[in-house]
Amino acid sequence: MRSTRGWAAAGPTTVRTTLLERRELRPDDVAVRVDYCGVCHSDLHALHSHAPGSTVPLVPGHEFTGVVTDIGSAARRFAVGDPVAVGNIVDACLSCDTCEAGQENFCREFPTLTYGGTDRRDGLPTFGAFAREYVVREEFAYPLPAPLDPAAAAPLLCAGITVWEPLRTLGVGPKTRVAVVGLGGLGHLAVKLAVALGAETTVISRSADKADDAHRLGAQGMLVSTDAAAMSAARGRFDVIIDTVAVTHDLGPYLALLALDGALSQVGYLGPVSVDTMDLLIGRKKLTSAGSGGRAHTAELLEFCAEHDVVADIELLPSSRVNESLERLGRGDVRYRFVLDMSDLDTPAQ
Amino acid sequence: MRSTRGWAAAGPTTVRTTLLERRELRPDDVAVRVDYCGVCHSDLHALHSHAPGSTVPLVPGHEFTGVVTDIGSAARRFAVGDPVAVGNIVDACLSCDTCEAGQENFCREFPTLTYGGTDRRDGLPTFGAFAREYVVREEFAYPLPAPLDPAAAAPLLCAGITVWEPLRTLGVGPKTRVAVVGLGGLGHLAVKLAVALGAETTVISRSADKADDAHRLGAQGMLVSTDAAAMSAARGRFDVIIDTVAVTHDLGPYLALLALDGALSQVGYLGPVSVDTMDLLIGRKKLTSAGSGGRAHTAELLEFCAEHDVVADIELLPSSRVNESLERLGRGDVRYRFVLDMSDLDTPAQ
Repeated sequence: MRSTRGWAAAGPTTVRTTLLERRELRPDDVAVRVDYCGVCHSDLHALHSHAPGSTVPLVPGHEFTGVVTDIGSAARRFAVGDPVAVGNIVDACLSCDTCEAGQENFCREFPTLTYGGTDRRDGLPTFGAFAREYVVREEFAYPLPAPLDPAAAAPLLCAGITVWEPLRTLGVGPKTRVAVVGLGGLGHLAVKLAVALGAETTVISRSADKADDAHRLGAQGMLVSTDAAAMSAARGRFDVIIDTVAVTHDLGPYLALLALDGALSQVGYLGPVSVDTMDLLIGRKKLTSAGSGGRAHTAELLEFCAEHDVVADIELLPSSRVNESLERLGRGDVRYRFVLDMSDLDTPAQ
Repeated sequence: MRSTRGWAAAGPTTVRTTLLERRELRPDDVAVRVDYCGVCHSDLHALHSHAPGSTVPLVPGHEFTGVVTDIGSAARRFAVGDPVAVGNIVDACLSCDTCEAGQENFCREFPTLTYGGTDRRDGLPTFGAFAREYVVREEFAYPLPAPLDPAAAAPLLCAGITVWEPLRTLGVGPKTRVAVVGLGGLGHLAVKLAVALGAETTVISRSADKADDAHRLGAQGMLVSTDAAAMSAARGRFDVIIDTVAVTHDLGPYLALLALDGALSQVGYLGPVSVDTMDLLIGRKKLTSAGSGGRAHTAELLEFCAEHDVVADIELLPSSRVNESLERLGRGDVRYRFVLDMSDLDTPAQ
């Protein structure tokens, strides 16, 4: 086994340094030196739900960029030194119908998660990229296009693909009227990507204090959801709504904003929501959801971002400040994504 | 005013004969002798929620066929003697964007309902087609194609269009894998229409006792929703599910049956449903709903039914037995739609 330094769960909201093992390279593996890893709300959820005293450590981190440092005997996609990016799934059966449709994230045999999962070949738990090295099947590493800043590109691999999926599958393009609810890690990337796709993009937020940011990100419009008159005036205005709000909330007021045949994609909250079917019926609207994406869409996203100069707005911190990032993320104090610089893990003092 | 005999609410589940007034024909009106009117679950709901002692009578009935008996001075679409059909909306602004998109049922100024509504010109309440005559703006009457039996065609105007809408807008055609949940008034027409569209059609029902009917209606498959093994084996099997179940129920087991990018249209129950967004996320599924349809789709449906010999399976009763039909409908004892023959209203004894 190989060993690497990283950060493992120490409590429901904190991590501490650890030494962890990675598998020796299989023929189709590559080893990646993790340079930058984003901090995702999922990481907080995973820490919260990790059983204290579990014998299996929890190492978060599933949106990262780095450099290939070693390749397996049969690996053909990468050479040592190549910049790469990895997201929240690291393996799948690659033979079921959904894998063959390019949606390995919905693999019928369940995709292998980057952390908190079980490797489908050796049956061992997977540990995430809050660490200096990751070993991954080469099919699940993506070339990182040269123009992209590797730190600011890391969040594309989870936050980015999560909003890219619905934007693409709902056919967003020039003239599509898109609204993005919530301007956080997912929302700010949804705005940038919708704008880059040519959509007429509006930010919906509970207060007007993000209006400047919304316009700086490229949004043409701003709608304050607590302004009843503005919400009423906006009824039927949007073709697509990307709802990134991370807590349970009433979807009715947003469904009312959709035009005929419009669709609302809920990407921020995973759990039960109540929806009145009458709100879907009037205007023949659709409710859907998305999360991560398949290999084809992920590669497409990275190319698109390179071409359109889209990366996340980040706060870059040395990994030694990971607990500060978790604490601030927990109370929503980030514009718009924390990314950890893992290079400090090379220093034994960590 | 014109007067006609009909049936008005007498209690939460019953009606009694009444004499009711119709407006004198406006230039763009036609008068229709109502020959056949279907009995819809909405009629039961309307009776249940009609306030006792209300000064405005409630006359149900919003799917009917008959013959034009008189035309307004500017009416151009019909001649006296033409067979026609009318559904659950009888007017709309015809100038808003949704009306111009052919979806008068979603008119931004709200369509005028066939009964229980308010006429948009004279402000008077509308009374339904449990009556011998109806006066309607000619744009909202449809030519009834000659091959269709006028009694069995009546339910096409509400039950039929309600399932036709989602079948058409979700792109059902040859090879589409369609499941219809619930084999009632809506469900049996959904099966016939899906089959006529060339879809591979499966009925999902709580017990196997409707298997013979399902096959007689043209369905290739039958899935028993209480058979856990069968439901598990059918995961991911359908592109489109038309859910006609008329009471609140868990959508999760049905969403699990959808293939990648599949859609579930809930048409049987109007109200709040709980859905787990994770059930939508995995497979990028869509939840939608439908109810009635616009003029274009309604006319298209009637042409399609004439061409493919599709009408409802009905129990035809003289209108004097309307209370029996309401009582039996209330307990689900109908295969598959009651239609009332209104000719007995010509007899003063009624």
